[in-house]
Amino acid sequence: MSSTVMVFDTAVSDEQIQAWQHHFELAGARSAAYRLGSTPVLVAPDVPHDTAVSGWLPRPIREVPLTGEIRLPDRALRPEGTVVRIGPATIGDGTINVFAGPCAVETREQLFASADAVAQCGVVGLRGGAFKPRTSPYSFQGLRWDGLDLLAEARERTGLPIVTEVVQPDHVERVAATADALQIGARNMQNFSLLTAAGQAGIPVVLKRGFGVTIDETLGAAEYLLNAGNDQVVICERGIRTFETATRFTLDLSAVAVFKQRSHLPVMVDPSHAAGIPSLVEPLTLAAAAVGADALLIDVHIRPEQALCDGKQAMLPTDFAQLMGKLEMLAMGIGRKMGNVARADIGELLAQV
Amino acid sequence: MSSTVMVFDTAVSDEQIQAWQHHFELAGARSAAYRLGSTPVLVAPDVPHDTAVSGWLPRPIREVPLTGEIRLPDRALRPEGTVVRIGPATIGDGTINVFAGPCAVETREQLFASADAVAQCGVVGLRGGAFKPRTSPYSFQGLRWDGLDLLAEARERTGLPIVTEVVQPDHVERVAATADALQIGARNMQNFSLLTAAGQAGIPVVLKRGFGVTIDETLGAAEYLLNAGNDQVVICERGIRTFETATRFTLDLSAVAVFKQRSHLPVMVDPSHAAGIPSLVEPLTLAAAAVGADALLIDVHIRPEQALCDGKQAMLPTDFAQLMGKLEMLAMGIGRKMGNVARADIGELLAQV
Amino acid sequence: MSSTVMVFDTAVSDEQIQAWQHHFELAGARSAAYRLGSTPVLVAPDVPHDTAVSGWLPRPIREVPLTGEIRLPDRALRPEGTVVRIGPATIGDGTINVFAGPCAVETREQLFASADAVAQCGVVGLRGGAFKPRTSPYSFQGLRWDGLDLLAEARERTGLPIVTEVVQPDHVERVAATADALQIGARNMQNFSLLTAAGQAGIPVVLKRGFGVTIDETLGAAEYLLNAGNDQVVICERGIRTFETATRFTLDLSAVAVFKQRSHLPVMVDPSHAAGIPSLVEPLTLAAAAVGADALLIDVHIRPEQALCDGKQAMLPTDFAQLMGKLEMLAMGIGRKMGNVARADIGELLAQV
Amino acid sequence: MSSTVMVFDTAVSDEQIQAWQHHFELAGARSAAYRLGSTPVLVAPDVPHDTAVSGWLPRPIREVPLTGEIRLPDRALRPEGTVVRIGPATIGDGTINVFAGPCAVETREQLFASADAVAQCGVVGLRGGAFKPRTSPYSFQGLRWDGLDLLAEARERTGLPIVTEVVQPDHVERVAATADALQIGARNMQNFSLLTAAGQAGIPVVLKRGFGVTIDETLGAAEYLLNAGNDQVVICERGIRTFETATRFTLDLSAVAVFKQRSHLPVMVDPSHAAGIPSLVEPLTLAAAAVGADALLIDVHIRPEQALCDGKQAMLPTDFAQLMGKLEMLAMGIGRKMGNVARADIGELLAQV
Repeated sequence: MSSTVMVFDTAVSDEQIQAWQHHFELAGARSAAYRLGSTPVLVAPDVPHDTAVSGWLPRPIREVPLTGEIRLPDRALRPEGTVVRIGPATIGDGTINVFAGPCAVETREQLFASADAVAQCGVVGLRGGAFKPRTSPYSFQGLRWDGLDLLAEARERTGLPIVTEVVQPDHVERVAATADALQIGARNMQNFSLLTAAGQAGIPVVLKRGFGVTIDETLGAAEYLLNAGNDQVVICERGIRTFETATRFTLDLSAVAVFKQRSHLPVMVDPSHAAGIPSLVEPLTLAAAAVGADALLIDVHIRPEQALCDGKQAMLPTDFAQLMGKLEMLAMGIGRKMGNVARADIGELLAQV
Repeated sequence: MSSTVMVFDTAVSDEQIQAWQHHFELAGARSAAYRLGSTPVLVAPDVPHDTAVSGWLPRPIREVPLTGEIRLPDRALRPEGTVVRIGPATIGDGTINVFAGPCAVETREQLFASADAVAQCGVVGLRGGAFKPRTSPYSFQGLRWDGLDLLAEARERTGLPIVTEVVQPDHVERVAATADALQIGARNMQNFSLLTAAGQAGIPVVLKRGFGVTIDETLGAAEYLLNAGNDQVVICERGIRTFETATRFTLDLSAVAVFKQRSHLPVMVDPSHAAGIPSLVEPLTLAAAAVGADALLIDVHIRPEQALCDGKQAMLPTDFAQLMGKLEMLAMGIGRKMGNVARADIGELLAQV
Repeated sequence: MSSTVMVFDTAVSDEQIQAWQHHFELAGARSAAYRLGSTPVLVAPDVPHDTAVSGWLPRPIREVPLTGEIRLPDRALRPEGTVVRIGPATIGDGTINVFAGPCAVETREQLFASADAVAQCGVVGLRGGAFKPRTSPYSFQGLRWDGLDLLAEARERTGLPIVTEVVQPDHVERVAATADALQIGARNMQNFSLLTAAGQAGIPVVLKRGFGVTIDETLGAAEYLLNAGNDQVVICERGIRTFETATRFTLDLSAVAVFKQRSHLPVMVDPSHAAGIPSLVEPLTLAAAAVGADALLIDVHIRPEQALCDGKQAMLPTDFAQLMGKLEMLAMGIGRKMGNVARADIGELLAQV
Repeated sequence: MSSTVMVFDTAVSDEQIQAWQHHFELAGARSAAYRLGSTPVLVAPDVPHDTAVSGWLPRPIREVPLTGEIRLPDRALRPEGTVVRIGPATIGDGTINVFAGPCAVETREQLFASADAVAQCGVVGLRGGAFKPRTSPYSFQGLRWDGLDLLAEARERTGLPIVTEVVQPDHVERVAATADALQIGARNMQNFSLLTAAGQAGIPVVLKRGFGVTIDETLGAAEYLLNAGNDQVVICERGIRTFETATRFTLDLSAVAVFKQRSHLPVMVDPSHAAGIPSLVEPLTLAAAAVGADALLIDVHIRPEQALCDGKQAMLPTDFAQLMGKLEMLAMGIGRKMGNVARADIGELLAQV
C-alpha cells in the first residue's frame, strides 16, 4: 500500500496531529508523525477516510506521495527550500556563502592570523578543526577542547560564526555550547548515534558526504538529523573515491545539482579536501557556485607548508582574496549575491578587541 | 631521520623498556613504547647509541625498519602471524574458520533455528546483529540489548562463541561483557573513538573494511585497536564500492592476500554482504579460502524471504551445509584444515538443553 | 511485446528456419535468425501462431524468454556450457587450463626460454604479445609481424597452441592465419569493428573485459563476436579500475561467478595484469580456480627485470612451477582436473627440435 | 639520464633540426625530433655539448625538462595554449564555444530541425553521430555514410561546421573529407591505430576521455594524435565510471582544470552523456564554463522521447535556448566571451536556402 506525506502549517498543534493519527487508526491504518523544523509532517497510508469525520481536522498545506526511502529531506515537502542560519549567515536563500579557515586549529597565532585574513575577504563564517579524526593514531589529533576555546576567541575577535567538527556522541553537547554549527565529517557520517546526538543539539549541522557513500545514502544520513528534530542541516559534497589519482578525491559536482533537485536542504562544497591541490581550489569554487552550491568550505592557512594537518591543500590568504573577488564577479553573472555578513558588525567587534 | 621498530621478548619488563627509552633520551632522541599484545615494542630513531652503555639492556628479538605509517600491524613485527582466539576457535593458525548465522537477531525462534542449523554444519562461531546500523532511520534497527540476551542464550544452547556488532563507544563495555568478539561494522570503522573503546574492551575484535576505504587505511584503523592494547584483531574484507552493479559490492579478494603480506593479523571474508546474492556465496567462499583467508562470515537464515535485514543475501541452511562440505574438500586440496570446534563439547551442551 | 528465443537442433537447416520466419511474417511479426556456432537460433515475438500451420516445422529443442539485451551469450540457450577448443585444449569442459608466457615477445631467446619453461610445467597454451597497445607512443609496441613468426616457431618447438592479441580489423586475417586463438585486449574490447572482424576469423577469441566496463557490457561485446558467427569465445576477467591502489587493478572474481551464471561461455582469469605484483599471482590463481574459472592467463618471464613491457608483474619460471603444483592439488580438492595437453605429443615435438 | 625538450621557432627548418640531432650524435646521445603543429620540437638527453660547435645552430625558444611520459601535450611546451580552429570557431583562445545537436543523425527532418534550432541559439558547431558504436549489436548503429551526407547538407543549411565520430581507421579519410572535425569516442580512445589514422587526417580531432581512463592516460592518447603530426586536438571530458548511480557517469570537472594545467590543449565538456539526465545539463554546463572549459558538447533533440540513441539525455531546443542565455551571462561574470560565429554568415546562408 502506498503512502502519502501530509505537510501541515506550522500553526497546527500536536493535538491536531494526534487527532489525525487517531482518525487513521480508526480506519485501521498506522501513521507516523514528524516535525520538519517547526512544520508538522504526517506519513499516512493511502486509505479511504471518511471526510465527514475528518472534515473538522486541519487540512495539509501539501500532500506528497511517498516514494523511495527519503522522507523528511524530500524537496517535495518544502519546494521553496530550507534556509539554514549559522550566526548571521543565511544558507539556502540564493546567496553564495563562504566559510574558510585552517583545516585544524594549531596555535592561537595561526588561528587568529588565518581568521583575520579570511574575515577581511568577506567570508560568512570561520572553519577550523579542534577534533581531527585521523587515519593514523600517530597523526596530530587536534587541540581538542583547547582548540574549541581558541575558536571561541577567534569568533569574538572577528565576529564570524564558527563551524567545527564533532566526532563522538558524548561530545555533542559541549561542542554545541560553543560552536555556531556542528560539522559531521566524511568518516563519521554513517555513525548513526552521532547523527542522532547531533540532530538533538539545537544548532545547525554541516553533514559531509562520505567518500564511498551515494547521494541517496547521504540523504538517509540527513534523515537521521531531521528525524531527531533538526531541520537546520547543510549537506556538504567533498569528493568521492574513484580510480583517478590526479586529485585526492573526485569532486562530484553533479551531486550538488542532484541534491538540490531531490532535497530542500542547502548544499555546501568543500573543494579543498576534494582536490588536495591549492591551485584547483579556485576553479572548483567557481564551478561549485555555478552548479548551484549555496556555500563553500575552503581551507586557508597562513603558512600551508607548516600545517599539521592537510596543509598541502590549503590556500594562501592572498590567493584566497583573489578567489573571493572572482567569485563575487561570477555571482553577478549568475544573478546571485554573496552572502556577506554586514561589515559594520565586524568593524564594531574588531573595535572592541 | 629514519626509525626502527624494536620488538622484545614478552618477558622484558616495562622497567627495562623505560631504561631503553631513557637511554635514547640521553642520545637526544625520542622513542615511543607500545605493546603488541604482550610483546613490548619500541619505535626509536636510528641514532648511534653507546653500546657500552646499552650493553646491559635486553636485546630486541627483532629489529625492523619503520616504513610508511603502519607500525603495530606490520607483518615484520610478527612474521609468524597473530592467532586470534574467539571462544575455542583459533583464527590465524592456518585453519579455515567459518562463522555463520543471521544478519540480524529477529526472534528467539529465528535465532535458535539458525544457530542450531549452522552449529550442525561445523561452524566455529555464531554471528548475529543485535544493533544494526541502517542507512534509513525507518529501517529495523535491531533488537538491541534484547538481541544480545538472545545471542547469549544461543551460545548456551549451541556452545558456539558469538560475534556481534557494537555501534557506539559507550556500548562497548556492556556488549563485551556478553559477546565473545566485537564486530566493528564497515560504516563505523573510521569512528576512531569507537575503535579506541573497542581496543580496550579486552576481547577480540573483527574489524570490517569500509567499502570506500583502502587497504592501508584499514590497517590504520587496526592500528587504533592495537595501539589501545589489543592484538586480538581480525580484519574482515566485505567488498568495496565500484561501478559494477551486478553485485552489491565488489569483493576485493586481492586485498586478502595483500593484508596477509603486509600484516600479521588474520583475515576474514564476508561473501554474503559483498555479493548480496545467495548463489554467489558458495563460489566466493571457496575463492576466499583459496586466496588465503583465515575465516569466513556467512549469512544463514532459516527463512531468508522473511528476514528484516538484508535477507535477500542470506543462504538457506541446506545450501550452507553443502557449502561446508565443499569447503572441507577444498581445504584438503590446499593443505589446510577446517577449524572445527570439538563436536563433543557441543554434544554435551546440547544434551544439557 | 515480449519475445522468445527458440533454440534448434544443429540438424535444422537454413531453409527450415526461413520457413519459421515466413510463418511469423504471416502472423505479422518480425523474427531474427542467428547461429550460435552451428546451433540455429530464432528470436521471435510472442505471437499466437497457428500450430496447425506450424505443425510440420521442426520444434525448437529449447524456448527461452528474451530478457534484457543479452541474446546469444545467454546461458539459458546452452545450459550445458560452451566448450572452446584452442589447439588440443578444451576450455569449458570442467578442466582448469593454464596459458602462460611472456607479456610481450621480445627476442627469440627470451620467447623460447619462457615457452620451454611453461611447457614443462603443464600449461595448455602459450601466450605472448606481438602487437602491444601501449598508453604512450614512446613505449615498446611489440615486434609485430616478426613477433608473430617467433610465436609460430615457439609453437613448433613446444607443441603449445598460441594465443596472441590482435589490435586492428585489417590485421585479423593475417594474425588468424598463424595464431590458434585471437586475444582482444581490454582497451579494444568495445572496438566494435575489431570485434566483428574477429568474430569472422574462424578461430577462437579470448575477449578481455575492459577495466571500466561492466559485466553486462562485456557480454554485449561477446554478443558482437557470437553474432558474427563465432561461438568459440572465452571471456577473460583481468581486473577493474577502483580507488584501491595497492594493486594495479581490482580483480573482480565475483564477476567470474556471475559470467558463469549468466552466460554459457567459458571464463578465463588474468591475475598477472590485474594485480601487477608477482607475489599476488599465486593466491589469485588459486582463488580464480576455486571461484569457477575455466582457464588462467599468466605472465611468466625468464628475466622479469629486463622485460620491455609490464615486466614487474611477471613470475619467474621456478615460482610458476610451484604454482602449477599447488593448482593441481587444489583442483583435486574441488573435484576438477587440470587440462593438460598430452605430454607425449610435446615429448615428440621436443625430440624433433 | 634526464632529458630536455627543446622547442624551436616555427621558422627553423628540418635541416637545422637534423643538424642539432647530428650534433647530439657526436656527443654519443640519441635525440628525437617531432613537430607540434608547425613547431619543431627536439627531445634530447642532458649531455654536455660543445657550445663552440653548436653555436651556429638555432637556439630553442624554450627548454623544458622532460618529466613523466607526457611530451607533446605538455603545457610547458606551449604555455600560451593551443587554439584549435573548427570551421570559423576558435577553441582555446578564451572564448566559450558550444557545439550542439542530436546524439545520432536519424532522419533529414530530425537533423535539420535540430540544426536550425541550435544555430539560432548561437552555437559554433553542429554535433551529430553518423556512426554510433553501441554496446549491443542489436541497437541502432547510425545511418553511417548516409548520415554523413545529411550532416554535410545541414552544414550548408546552417553554416555550422560539423563534428562527427569516426570509429575505424579505414573510415578516417572519407569522414575527414566531409567533416570539419573528427570525434574519437570514449570506447575507442585507446584504439591506437584509430588515433594514429586520425592524427594524420589533417583536420581537428575531439578526443573523448574514456570512462575508465585516467587524466594522464588521456594525455597519452592525445600524444598519439600529436605525434602523428596534428596539434589541432581538443580533449573532451564526458564523465567517468564511479559507484554513484544517480547520474549515468560522474562528470569529473576537476579533470578539466587539471588538463588545462598539464596540457596546452583546449578542453571540451560533454554534460549530456555524463549526466544522462536533461535537467542536469544546465547546471553542469555552467559549472564547466566556470571551471575553465573552452567548449561544450550538448545533446539537443527536437523530440527526445523519440530519439533512437540516448534520447533520454537530450535537451529540448527551448531549454537549450534558455541555457545559452544563462551561459552568456555567466561568461560575462568570469570575464570571457561566447565564441559566436558571425551571425551575418549564417543569415546569408539561410537566405540562400
